[in-house]
This record gives sequence, C-alpha cells and structure tokens, in this order.
Amino acid sequence: MKITIEGSGRHVHIAKEHLEALFGAGYALEVKKPLSQPGEFASSARVDVSGPKGTIKSVVILGPCRAATQVELSFTDARVLGLDCPVRESGDIAGSAGCTLTGSQGSLELKEGAIVAKRHVHLTPEDAARAGVADKEIVRVRTAGTRALVFDEVVCRVSPKYGTAMHVDYDEMNAAGLGPGNNAGEIVK
Amino acid sequence: MKITIEGSGRHVHIAKEHLEALFGAGYALEVKKPLSQPGEFASSARVDVSGPKGTIKSVVILGPCRAATQVELSFTDARVLGLDCPVRESGDIAGSAGCTLTGSQGSLELKEGAIVAKRHVHLTPEDAARAGVADKEIVRVRTAGTRALVFDEVVCRVSPKYGTAMHVDYDEMNAAGLGPGNNAGEIVK
Repeated sequence: MKITIEGSGRHVHIAKEHLEALFGAGYALEVKKPLSQPGEFASSARVDVSGPKGTIKSVVILGPCRAATQVELSFTDARVLGLDCPVRESGDIAGSAGCTLTGSQGSLELKEGAIVAKRHVHLTPEDAARAGVADKEIVRVRTAGTRALVFDEVVCRVSPKYGTAMHVDYDEMNAAGLGPGNNAGEIVK
Repeated sequence: MKITIEGSGRHVHIAKEHLEALFGAGYALEVKKPLSQPGEFASSARVDVSGPKGTIKSVVILGPCRAATQVELSFTDARVLGLDCPVRESGDIAGSAGCTLTGSQGSLELKEGAIVAKRHVHLTPEDAARAGVADKEIVRVRTAGTRALVFDEVVCRVSPKYGTAMHVDYDEMNAAGLGPGNNAGEIVK
C-alpha cells in the first residue's frame, strides 16, 4: 500500500508544569499551524535546547500539552548538542538523554526525555486493514528515486485518532532523498 | 558479502590552480591523516564553503589534488548553505551547484562542483569477484540494528587501487543508526 512519508523536524512535547516554568504561570499554547495528525499542532512557542556541547535555538513546541516532556531530535542534532539519545517510540523516555530547555521566562533541566524518534507509520484502522497490518507490527517501507532504500524496523501505530502517514526525521528524509515531489512510500511485509 | 560502511563527512577535492588561489602560489597539501582508499589523505588545509544562505567553516580538503574541484556535502549541509545539489558520482559535476570557497589567502567562485555523493562501494577486483559484482553495477546493501534498512541504488566501483569499503554520508549513517559498533553492511543483489 502506498503511503505519504512526512519529515518531522526537531520538536518538543511539553508537560503543562514545564510550559509554565518556561513561559510563566498561566501560559497556554496557541495554535500556529495544524499538523497531519488530527488535534496536533505546531504552537507559536519556541525553546532553546542545550546539551554539553551546544545549543539549538528556537525549537518548536508541539501541542497540545502531554503528561511528560519529550524532546525529539535527529542524530545530527544530538551530535551538535553532545547528547547520547536512544532511538525510541514516542512516550518511551525512561533512561533517555537529559538536556536543558530555556524559554522566555525561565529554564529547566530535564533528567530524561531527549530521544531520536523510531520511524513509524500512523494508520487509521481502515488503512491498517487494507494494508494487512496490526498495531505495533514492524513492517518495511520502500521508497523510490536516486536514493531509493527500504526502511526496515518501521513500527505501525493504528488508531481511529490518526491520519495515515509515515513519520521519519530529516536524517532519514535526506538519506532517502525524500522531499517535495518524492514523498511516497510503499509498505512491504 | 559483508562489507564495512564508512561515513564520509563533508569535504573538498581541489584542483592545483584553485589550491594556489586559496592558499598562495606554491602551496602544497600536506598529509594529516591517510584515508581508507590507498593514496588518499585528509590534508591539514581547511576552507570555508559558502552559499546564498550560509557558510560552513573549516571544511577539510582531501588530497592529492584532482583535475577538477569538487565539494561533497550532505543534504543537511546543502540546506544550511542554500544550495540545490544533485546526487552524483564523484567526478560527475557538470551542471551541479556552485558555491564560494575561502582559504587563508583568497577566495574563489565555483560555477559548479558541489554535489551530494551517490552512495557507493569500493571493491578490489578480488572482492568484486567474491561478491559477484561488476564495476558500475547497482546493488543493494543491508544494514542491521534499531534503524536497519536496505540501501538501494548503491553503485559498485571496482579497481585494484581501491580498498573494499562502502561510503555513505552522515545523513545516511544517521538514518541507518550506523557508527562505532554498528558499521557492517551486506551486499544483496
């Protein structure tokens, strides 16, 4: 089955208490741009992310708030910051890398939360049935073009809350030569 | 057949007249570190590479000098510089991106020469025979680990001058989760 592959840039998911520590009591995220996953949005809030070797400024916070703060980076980013980030599914942050976040009103130290996202496919139940895949199943996704490759270790996430799309980071987009005009993948089992 | 996958960072191959334009008449490259390909070396010379959107400072010049100057970047680098680099084999620079190089004694405008390197495997004739591949043949190379994938569109380059190794850039290294402890690939046809 053909799917669209979307590049996820570095971003932060934020817990409400951390948002207030960074931007002041009562601060709430405002929607700047809706994302492909229903209800998710890029907010207008930006934070600087720092590690032992450097800082990446102005990283977007995605909304809505989550139970735990999570920083999603590429390995390229992690090297700039000097962080040893594991490849993890979203939400699985136990023992991941720590870092410092700085907002307009304060900063905070995260003991863990910085990960490199495991590549994944969001699927509606209908599309999962069409593709013959189940939630949490590992599949492969083939791309085309001058940098064609087959991503292995792609985890399927199935929910009626999702829109069907594959998410990879920009190291993966670049390695596959994906971008405008070449963003199709095919699930192969 | 198992092969070692090596990451090539951004680098410049330089023509002798350009080297002198950048570093002064009579300047010669000195060997700082030998590379895996026999006779090739990282020199101690560094140049700044600039495009319409930015500059990457202190990019290594590899030696020995070549007939034409060539700048090999990742797509991550190309985006920083604002260059639209094609994916090309080394030496195939006609119509590729231009950029500015700046050395300690001068700078020069390249009308073309900036490329993203096409991933490739260097093979000795003996290893090519063992793997059953020919010069210029396109093969696939499988990796392992949490970011396992199969690189397609890998060009084989066979010469008695080579050491057997696959070369990819750091977008590709990162996308595959390759690095110390996980740098093995397997040629699959």
